[in-house]
Amino acid sequence: MDQKHVVIVGGGFAGLAAAKRLANKPSVRVTLIDRRNHHLFQPLLYQVAMAGLSPAEIAAPIRSILSGAKNVQVVCSSVTSIGLERSVVFTDQRETAYDYLLMACGAKHGYFGNEDWEPFAPGLKTIEQATEIRRRVLGSFEKAELTDDPEERKKQLTFVIVGGGPTGVELAGAIGEMSRFTLSRDFRNIDPSGARVILIEAGPRILGMFDERLANKAARFLEQLGVQVWTGSPATKIDVEGVELADEKICAATVLWAAGVQASSLGRGSGVECDRAGRVVVEKDLSIPSHANVFVAGDQCAFIDAKSGEQLPGQAPVAAQQGRFVADTILDEIAGKDRSEFKYFDKGQMATVGRARAIAEVSGFRFAGFFAWLVWLVVHIFFLTGFRNRFFVVLSWAWSFFTFRRGARLIVEKKWQFYGDPSEDKDGGGRPAV
Amino acid sequence: MDQKHVVIVGGGFAGLAAAKRLANKPSVRVTLIDRRNHHLFQPLLYQVAMAGLSPAEIAAPIRSILSGAKNVQVVCSSVTSIGLERSVVFTDQRETAYDYLLMACGAKHGYFGNEDWEPFAPGLKTIEQATEIRRRVLGSFEKAELTDDPEERKKQLTFVIVGGGPTGVELAGAIGEMSRFTLSRDFRNIDPSGARVILIEAGPRILGMFDERLANKAARFLEQLGVQVWTGSPATKIDVEGVELADEKICAATVLWAAGVQASSLGRGSGVECDRAGRVVVEKDLSIPSHANVFVAGDQCAFIDAKSGEQLPGQAPVAAQQGRFVADTILDEIAGKDRSEFKYFDKGQMATVGRARAIAEVSGFRFAGFFAWLVWLVVHIFFLTGFRNRFFVVLSWAWSFFTFRRGARLIVEKKWQFYGDPSEDKDGGGRPAV
Repeated sequence: MDQKHVVIVGGGFAGLAAAKRLANKPSVRVTLIDRRNHHLFQPLLYQVAMAGLSPAEIAAPIRSILSGAKNVQVVCSSVTSIGLERSVVFTDQRETAYDYLLMACGAKHGYFGNEDWEPFAPGLKTIEQATEIRRRVLGSFEKAELTDDPEERKKQLTFVIVGGGPTGVELAGAIGEMSRFTLSRDFRNIDPSGARVILIEAGPRILGMFDERLANKAARFLEQLGVQVWTGSPATKIDVEGVELADEKICAATVLWAAGVQASSLGRGSGVECDRAGRVVVEKDLSIPSHANVFVAGDQCAFIDAKSGEQLPGQAPVAAQQGRFVADTILDEIAGKDRSEFKYFDKGQMATVGRARAIAEVSGFRFAGFFAWLVWLVVHIFFLTGFRNRFFVVLSWAWSFFTFRRGARLIVEKKWQFYGDPSEDKDGGGRPAV
Repeated sequence: MDQKHVVIVGGGFAGLAAAKRLANKPSVRVTLIDRRNHHLFQPLLYQVAMAGLSPAEIAAPIRSILSGAKNVQVVCSSVTSIGLERSVVFTDQRETAYDYLLMACGAKHGYFGNEDWEPFAPGLKTIEQATEIRRRVLGSFEKAELTDDPEERKKQLTFVIVGGGPTGVELAGAIGEMSRFTLSRDFRNIDPSGARVILIEAGPRILGMFDERLANKAARFLEQLGVQVWTGSPATKIDVEGVELADEKICAATVLWAAGVQASSLGRGSGVECDRAGRVVVEKDLSIPSHANVFVAGDQCAFIDAKSGEQLPGQAPVAAQQGRFVADTILDEIAGKDRSEFKYFDKGQMATVGRARAIAEVSGFRFAGFFAWLVWLVVHIFFLTGFRNRFFVVLSWAWSFFTFRRGARLIVEKKWQFYGDPSEDKDGGGRPAV
C-alpha cells in the first residue's frame, strides 16, 4: 500500500498529540524524532525544581507511550537542519525524506539580547535546568548556614525571580513555602523563614493574561508567603552579584529567569519567516507559506488567534490542539478532503501560588484559593501522561501536603567530570531541546 | 557544661549511625560534615542505574534525618585534609577543631592501577554514576535501533559487567530482565531480547563470599535471564572498543565496573597507615595507632574480623555497627569507662538476581529463589531510611512487578554546559564522595 511518510520533529505536547492521532492509521507511516528519550510534562517542571517531585514522575519514555502505535517509529536523535526544497530532515546520522513534516521543536528561555545573563539566571525548560535550579536554591541555604559573614548570609538567603507570569509566580510561591515550612527546623545557624523572596516584573502587574482581580488575589497569596512582589521593575543587569533595577541593586545568590522565551533555532535555520522570538509565521492551517506539506505547532509556532486578535500563548493545551489539528489535516488531505482553518478552543487558565492556593479562569468563571487549587490539581493529574506518573504524583502531593515536607530534596552534582566517554562529547548541550 | 566536640566526616551508614547514637546526649556536641546534602542507601543504587527507582527514592537529606538531634550540626562542605597533630579538620571554608574524630568517608571504585579504564567502564557508587550508567544502557538500545550497520548494532547490544560480586550479579540480572521484559515491545528495528549480557569474573566462581551451592544457583538464575557467566576471565584491557580477555575480545558499547574498591584518599592523605586499597589500618577499638581520639569506620576502615580471620566486607551492616560502636566508645570514655574491642555481628548476606529471584544466607540458613527474594525485599525496605522512601519504593516495586515496566526510564544529559555559574566550578567533581 502507498503510505505517506509523516515526520514529526519533537515529542512535546504538539508532536505527541499528532503521533497519537496518526497511530495505526493505514494511510500513513510516522517517524517521530526527538533528541531526548522522554516526553516531559512541563506544567509541573517547577515542582521538580522546587524539590517536590522527582524528574521521572513527570516524564515518560516516548517509545513506551507509543509502543502500541505500530506505524510509528521513534528515533532518539538530534535534528540538525531541514531541507525544505528536497523535503528531507537531517539528523546527526542520516537524512530522512518526508511527504509531510510537522515541526514541533518548542522553545527555550530568551533573554532579549542579554544572553550573558544566562549563567546567573537560569530558566526552566528541561529536567537538567530543573535540577540545576534545585541545586542552587537548596545550596544557598547550605551556604548561608556555613558562613559567618552577615552580608554573605543575607545574599545567600535572597532569591529573585524575574518575570511575573505563571512560572515566575509558581517558583516564587514554592520558595516562600519551602523556606517557611519545609526547612524551618533543619538548620542551626540560620532561620530559613527569614529568607527574602522577591518577584520582579517589568509590567504594571503580575499575571498579565489573567483578570486583574484574580491577579491581585495571587499577589496577596504571595505576600502571605513572605514573597515581595515588585511590579514596574525591569532588570537592567544580572551578574554574579545579583540583579540591578533602574534605581536599586538587589544582592542575591540565586536569580531565576521566567521572563521570556525564544523558539527553537530550527525554524530560522530553515530559512522560513519567523517573528522576533524565533517562532515560525504560519498560514491559517498551520502550514508554512509556499510549503503546504510542512506544518509548525506548539511553542515554535506564531499564530494569531482570530477571536482575540492576539498571539496564542505557549501553553500545553494550545500545542496539543495544534498537533491534533495537523494530524487531522494530513489524514483528511490524503482522503481527498479540503483543508480547514485552525481554531483554538480556550478552556481557561490557572496558576498555583504555594501551598493549597491557586487562581483559575475556566469558561468565564473566576475563582481563587483552595477550591481553585483543587481544580488545578485535578486538571494536572488528569492530563499527566502515564498511569504510573499520575499515581505517584498524587501520592507525592498527599505526602507533602500532610507532612509539610518535600520528597526530592536532593542536590546532585552540576557537572560530573569523573567519568564520561570522551568520544561522545559532541552533543553535550548548547542546543535547545528539539 | 563542658561538652566534648565530636566531628564526623561522612554521612553514609557509619557516620549517620554514629550521629544518631550521639543525638541529644548531653556530654557531646557533634558536627557532621559531608560534601553532599543527602544520605544514600547504596544497596539499592543499582536499581537507580537500571531505571527501576528514582534517585530521590533512595536518598534522604542528612539535615532532615537529624533535624531532631539538637546537638548535631550538619555542614555541607568538602573536607580537604585532616591535621592529626593539631586535632583539626580542614574544609574549603574553614578549620574545625575536634576532641574526637570519626572518619567515615567511604570508598569509590578502584581499577587496580588501570585508572585509564575508568571512562569506558564506570563504577557504581554515587547517584551521578547511577544516572550515567542508566544513560549508557538505555542509550545503547537507542543507538542500536538507529544504526543500519549490523556490526555496530551487535556492539551496541552487548553489555559486559566486570566483577562477579553482588553488585555485578545484580546489574547483570537487571539488564537481562530489562531486555527480555521491559523493552520487548518498544522498538521497531531491533529485538531487545537478543541483547548479549556477559558477566566476567577473574576468580573461579561468582559470589565468592557465598556458599558454593548458592552461588551456583545464582549463576543458573542469571543464565535463565540470558546472561552469560564467564568465570576465570580477568579483563586485560578495556577501551572504547570493549573488553579484552586473555584469549578473546568482546566488542561492547557498554561496560560496567563492579570489580574493586578504593577507599577515600583522605586516609592516606593524613599520613596514617593504609592497606593497598587505601583503607586505614585500625586498632581493635577502631581508633588509629597513636591517635586514640581518631576513629575510622565503614568502607574506609581495614579491620580483620577475629572470628573469620578475614577483612570485613564493605557492606552497610558493617559500617552501621562500627559507627554505633565508635559513638558508644566515645560516650563511655567521657563517662570514665574503659574501651572494649569491636566485634562484628554477622546477620548474613544476600543478593538479588533479576525478577523475583535472590539468594540469601541468614544465620546459617541458606535459601534461593522467590522466598529469598521476599526476604531480601523485606530486609531492604526495613533498613531504608525514611518512611516516605519506604512507602514509595514499595509502590515502585509493586508497579514494576505487576506491569513488567520500569518507573524511571529517563535519560538525562551527561553534561550540561547550557547554564552554570562559572564562578562556582571549582568543586566540579574528580574527588570521591567524602
